[in-house]
This record gives sequence, C-alpha cells and structure tokens, in this order.
Amino acid sequence: MSVYDKLTAIGVSLPPITRSVGMFQPFVRTGHLIFVSGHIARRNGEPWVGRLGADMPLEEGQQAARAIAIELVGALQAATNADLASITRIVKLLVLVNAAPTFTAPHLVANGASELLNQVFGERGPHARTAIGVAQLPLGACVEIELIAEVA
Amino acid sequence: MSVYDKLTAIGVSLPPITRSVGMFQPFVRTGHLIFVSGHIARRNGEPWVGRLGADMPLEEGQQAARAIAIELVGALQAATNADLASITRIVKLLVLVNAAPTFTAPHLVANGASELLNQVFGERGPHARTAIGVAQLPLGACVEIELIAEVA
Amino acid sequence: MSVYDKLTAIGVSLPPITRSVGMFQPFVRTGHLIFVSGHIARRNGEPWVGRLGADMPLEEGQQAARAIAIELVGALQAATNADLASITRIVKLLVLVNAAPTFTAPHLVANGASELLNQVFGERGPHARTAIGVAQLPLGACVEIELIAEVA
Repeated sequence: MSVYDKLTAIGVSLPPITRSVGMFQPFVRTGHLIFVSGHIARRNGEPWVGRLGADMPLEEGQQAARAIAIELVGALQAATNADLASITRIVKLLVLVNAAPTFTAPHLVANGASELLNQVFGERGPHARTAIGVAQLPLGACVEIELIAEVA
Repeated sequence: MSVYDKLTAIGVSLPPITRSVGMFQPFVRTGHLIFVSGHIARRNGEPWVGRLGADMPLEEGQQAARAIAIELVGALQAATNADLASITRIVKLLVLVNAAPTFTAPHLVANGASELLNQVFGERGPHARTAIGVAQLPLGACVEIELIAEVA
Repeated sequence: MSVYDKLTAIGVSLPPITRSVGMFQPFVRTGHLIFVSGHIARRNGEPWVGRLGADMPLEEGQQAARAIAIELVGALQAATNADLASITRIVKLLVLVNAAPTFTAPHLVANGASELLNQVFGERGPHARTAIGVAQLPLGACVEIELIAEVA
C-alpha cells in the first residue's frame, strides 16, 4: 500500500505546495537528508492559537500536532517533487509545545504527530523525537514541529 | 584505552538496551549519523523532577545532565550493536533545561553531560552544543538532552 | 561577487577565529555538514542581555540576531579554514529567543539573522528555519542561534 493510498485511506489531503515563505525556505535538501522548517499549527488557514496547561486541553494539542504532521508531509511532497515513495525514513522530530510552566506532557502532544507519520509511512515512519514545552511560538501557535527525513 | 575501559575506569555501567519507547524510537541511524531522541533525566528509574532557578541547585542539575549522558551512551551502544568503538565523533548536543525565567546558566548544567562524553570518548568526544532554558519538560524532568553522533 | 566581497560591501568584519570554548567546540564537521554550536548574542564582547516582550524591543532583537549571524559566519570561516566559497548551502537555523510568554514574534527576530545570511551567501543562503521563544538563555542573552551548513 503506497503512501498515497494510505493518505487516502485515512482521509487526508495534502496541502498545496509552498515554495517559499519569505526569508527562509520550507525545506532544504542536503545529500540524503531533507530538513523541513518548523511548521506552526494552523486551522482553517489561520494560526491555531493556544497554550497547553492554560487555555487548551491535551486532546486539542494532539489534534494540532496531527495537523502539523500533515503539513510536514506536504512539505516532503514538495521536496520530493511529488514522490513520497522516495522517502526512506522519517528521521527525527523536534516538537515544540506552547506550554504553561505547569504542563508536563509535551510528549503526549507530540504523539498526535508521531501517530500520523507512522500511519502514513508504515515501517519507514518510526523516528527519533524530542518534545519540550516552550515559552511562546510564532503568532501564538500552540505547537510547532520541525522534521528531518531521509530520501533515497 | 577503549571506550569500555574508560566506562569501567570511571565506574559507569550502561543501562539495558531499549529498543522502542512507544510511538517513537530511541534513535535512528541515517548514513553515518545517529540521531538519538531527547532523553529526560531519571533517578532510580523515575523522572528526575525539578526546575533550575526554582527548586533545584546547579550542582544537582549537572548531576542530572551527567546521568542523561550515560543514558545517551547506552542508546549509542544499542544503535551500534554494542560496538561503541565504531562511534567516530560525538557531533552535537541539544541541552534543554527546565528553568525559571531567572536562571541564566543552562550552559553550566550542560557541562555535566559534556564532561562525561569527553571522558568516555576522548578525542572523539568534543562536540558542538546548544543549551537553553525551557518552560517545561516531559514528566517534569529537570533536563532533557538529544544527541547526534557520527558512526564509521 | 564572492562571499568576502559581499561582506566587505555591507561593511561586515568577521570575528577572530575561536577554536574551542571550554567543554565543547564552536563547530563540528561530519561528512558534508558543519554543525555550528548555539551562539549567543554579544555586543562589545559582552552578552547582549534582554528579553523580548519584556525589556527589549523587536528592532533590537533583530539587530542581535544579525550580530549572531556574523558570529556564525565567523565560525564557518574557521570550519572551512578561511574558505567560505566552499560553503555550498546554509541548511538550517534554530533561532531561540529569550521571550516573555506574551511575545509571539520570534520569527521576526529570526529575520535579522536570515537576512544577513541571504545577503552574504546569495543563492546559497536560503535555509530551513525554526524560531521559538524560550524561558531563558545562557548568561541572560536575548537570542541564541545554532546553524547547519553544507560544505563541498
């Protein structure tokens, strides 16, 4: 079952390809690695604002992380010229959670992204990961994730 | 003097090998690089809870960072199939310190990990590093560290 | 126009080469990648202290980010034995902004660094990037940036 079949099976549409976002790039390929920029959570095209442990419950944070994972797959789609089969491994995620100092579950928020990537990429999905709670994120977004992938 | 001799000389036992930790992996190898997931500080198997600049002194944070470095060496032991001699370089650490906004010494906490890695890996130990204070960490741990290593 | 000509054209002098900074290295090369350690903002040789959203305006944060970018180019100068023409791509920045929990523009602070790198490296400058607000940084610095570059 291809990555695209899996995306269809779980009802996920990839976002349109973004080639540039101002002063930086959505991704850079070097050798067999693709470094994808930190992507913030968005809902209906707007920043998904909130802080875990303050005004946003865990479940919503997980949904936001899942939404970012879809954006990251979209970035990989662009980086591979629409050939996700060439992604041989999701290497690492850095998951940044907009968190009150009392919120100790950034790893559970991160699971929303990890689960989606594992679903879509199968045995090529399991990745290393670091999850932390940070003081604030661009535009007040609740979660931001950067990704490294290996390409054939 | 081999890495294993050095570990013995400083009285360090490596932890048992962990192959998976839920939705993500303790490490991923890609080409000549091993990306090790962020590992939180543990003491007696439990999260080592605390915040620098609030309820934990610098010295304890450094001990926690050293304890994580041992866990990271354990992850490299697993990643190399128990052949630490194949590690040709510790490349980079990202050191995340659970810190009150007034705590300005995350780099001194990080030294607890850097010193252990330099002791164990000798001339292959010196690494690039980034140390920061963050709002919160998984399970309330005082320190979390991710590592990149080069393998032959 | 070479990188050095561009530096001259915008009036930037590279800092003296630093070979070591205590327990870690300013950079590590592995394969075709150079990992540069997180560099904090400095002004007149002293840490550039402040917190965005509290006691430092955006424009000053951007100046600090630009100053760090110059330090990072200096680290690349050292890493390449003074041959910046061998840098084939700025791959990724991790931009850490010392920020009050109310400050939602770490990406705008980061632009101060991205702009300098784009000016200096031209078509080899555009990079992936992650920008976040953190609780605190070494020595109270307002911004810290780590960089990955590709070398020929």
